[in-house]
Amino acid sequence: MAQAFKRFMPLADRILVQKLKAEAKSAGGILLPDSAKQEMNQAKVLAVGLGRRNQQGEIIPMQTKVGDIVVIPRYGGTEIKLDEEEYQIYRDEDIVGVIKEE
Amino acid sequence: MAQAFKRFMPLADRILVQKLKAEAKSAGGILLPDSAKQEMNQAKVLAVGLGRRNQQGEIIPMQTKVGDIVVIPRYGGTEIKLDEEEYQIYRDEDIVGVIKEE
Amino acid sequence: MAQAFKRFMPLADRILVQKLKAEAKSAGGILLPDSAKQEMNQAKVLAVGLGRRNQQGEIIPMQTKVGDIVVIPRYGGTEIKLDEEEYQIYRDEDIVGVIKEE
Amino acid sequence: MAQAFKRFMPLADRILVQKLKAEAKSAGGILLPDSAKQEMNQAKVLAVGLGRRNQQGEIIPMQTKVGDIVVIPRYGGTEIKLDEEEYQIYRDEDIVGVIKEE
Amino acid sequence: MAQAFKRFMPLADRILVQKLKAEAKSAGGILLPDSAKQEMNQAKVLAVGLGRRNQQGEIIPMQTKVGDIVVIPRYGGTEIKLDEEEYQIYRDEDIVGVIKEE
Amino acid sequence: MAQAFKRFMPLADRILVQKLKAEAKSAGGILLPDSAKQEMNQAKVLAVGLGRRNQQGEIIPMQTKVGDIVVIPRYGGTEIKLDEEEYQIYRDEDIVGVIKEE
Amino acid sequence: MAQAFKRFMPLADRILVQKLKAEAKSAGGILLPDSAKQEMNQAKVLAVGLGRRNQQGEIIPMQTKVGDIVVIPRYGGTEIKLDEEEYQIYRDEDIVGVIKEE
Repeated sequence: MAQAFKRFMPLADRILVQKLKAEAKSAGGILLPDSAKQEMNQAKVLAVGLGRRNQQGEIIPMQTKVGDIVVIPRYGGTEIKLDEEEYQIYRDEDIVGVIKEE
Repeated sequence: MAQAFKRFMPLADRILVQKLKAEAKSAGGILLPDSAKQEMNQAKVLAVGLGRRNQQGEIIPMQTKVGDIVVIPRYGGTEIKLDEEEYQIYRDEDIVGVIKEE
Repeated sequence: MAQAFKRFMPLADRILVQKLKAEAKSAGGILLPDSAKQEMNQAKVLAVGLGRRNQQGEIIPMQTKVGDIVVIPRYGGTEIKLDEEEYQIYRDEDIVGVIKEE
Repeated sequence: MAQAFKRFMPLADRILVQKLKAEAKSAGGILLPDSAKQEMNQAKVLAVGLGRRNQQGEIIPMQTKVGDIVVIPRYGGTEIKLDEEEYQIYRDEDIVGVIKEE
Repeated sequence: MAQAFKRFMPLADRILVQKLKAEAKSAGGILLPDSAKQEMNQAKVLAVGLGRRNQQGEIIPMQTKVGDIVVIPRYGGTEIKLDEEEYQIYRDEDIVGVIKEE
Repeated sequence: MAQAFKRFMPLADRILVQKLKAEAKSAGGILLPDSAKQEMNQAKVLAVGLGRRNQQGEIIPMQTKVGDIVVIPRYGGTEIKLDEEEYQIYRDEDIVGVIKEE
Repeated sequence: MAQAFKRFMPLADRILVQKLKAEAKSAGGILLPDSAKQEMNQAKVLAVGLGRRNQQGEIIPMQTKVGDIVVIPRYGGTEIKLDEEEYQIYRDEDIVGVIKEE
């Protein structure tokens, strides 16, 4: 069976992302209780829409691409569940930034 | 008697959808109690409007078509009941994405 | 005396409608208690305005016409009472769809 | 002394109206207690402004005129009192319709 | 010392007004208790700004002038106190009408 | 050391002001308790931005200049503290008026 | 390992800043308890986006640059944590001003 998210096609300027899992260990290697795991606001881009059109009917290029690690805003977005996995959908312009590989 | 939804014609850029039924069994085949059935945010498109016009009076093409399985937003939409069946109406631009067939 | 609604002329893109009465009997023919009668969101169009003008001063054509059975949104609209009958007024663009005759 | 409202000149697209008094008798001629008198949403137009200008600086014609019986929206409007009489002020575009003479 | 308000110059399309004092006597000449004095929504215009500019950079002419008795809206406006006297500031377009001299 | 506010450069159409101190004595020369000191809405302009640009990219001239005594709105603005002194920042268009010297 | 913030690229007209730390000592050199440390609204700019485009598709130049000490608004912004350090992201146009070096 294909990965469920591969069957999802975001419309207009929406992107499908999945939040990165917070480390279950502290920097020093100690296992963290659940309350110590911070809410992650980093996510991986899994699918991107074709972009929305401006008032002249031209497509505005997307800023994000599949594979990017992005910082998502604290509010907004739509949750979806595909084959027991949680994903989020945002509009491209709501993504605050991209984290480059080291 | 024709199916009730076939008599409904959405205006402008609205679409008529019906939510997919959540599985009543878990992945392992166990019957789920009602509280465990998640609120579905996937729906099937049953009818689409002609589209709304932009400021130049041209019709903006619809992104969804009859038969599509779509992801609907968590809020918004209008509920209607036709011959004892529940349907929902959304604007085309509020649909977050389409789920392709496997 | 003419029917009261015939004296009412909606302004701009407004339409005058009257909600259809919910069936007082269930599908099986049993008389329903008041609590079981669902709030109807279908209505008959009784009068339509001339339409509102766009920024170029041209009249935008109305989507509904007298006699249409329409689905009205759950919120909004203005109630009026003419000769002891209740009516509702909506803007044409707030009407979600039209129900065609079988 | 001239009637107070005759000294009032609405600015831009505003109109001065006075609510019609609700009948103190029921249709069958019985005197109604105060609680049974419905809040009237019909009013008589007493004065109209010159109209507001569009972005090209042209005056948008008013839809209502002095003497019209109009249906006013449930919310909005400004109350004023001139020589002990209550009046209301609305914008022309907020008036939902006109009631024609029989 | 000049009257304080004469030193105040409203910016853009703002106007400086002072509310008229409510009559302390009823129409029949009886002194009214404080609770019977209605909140006045009539005011005298004491100073007017030069007007705000439209998107083409042209000044939109003011509708009110110094000396006008105007009806002010129930909400909005900014209170200022100059040399122990209370004044109010409104935008010209928020003034609902002008009361002409008898 | 230069006065702290001299190091602050407001961006776009913002201005830096400092509220005037309320008189600690009444008009009759009596020292006022703190509760009797009214909240001042007059302020001195200490720095002004270059102005914001309109949609054509042209800078809209500022209405206020350094040294002006201005009336500030009751709400809005941003508080900043520089070297233990309190200042406020407003947008030029939110300033309601200027108080001229006698 | 590179500093985490160096891997973050703000999108459009966003900037990455880090709040300056409040002095832990009073002006007189006394160590301050935590409650006396004021919430800082000054921050250092660490990264800036390329700018957003206007309706004509042209990039609007950024007002801030890396290294600037800026005054941030009291509300808004997005918090992010990179390698255990807290940062904030704002839109360039929400920055109220720049503090110049003495």
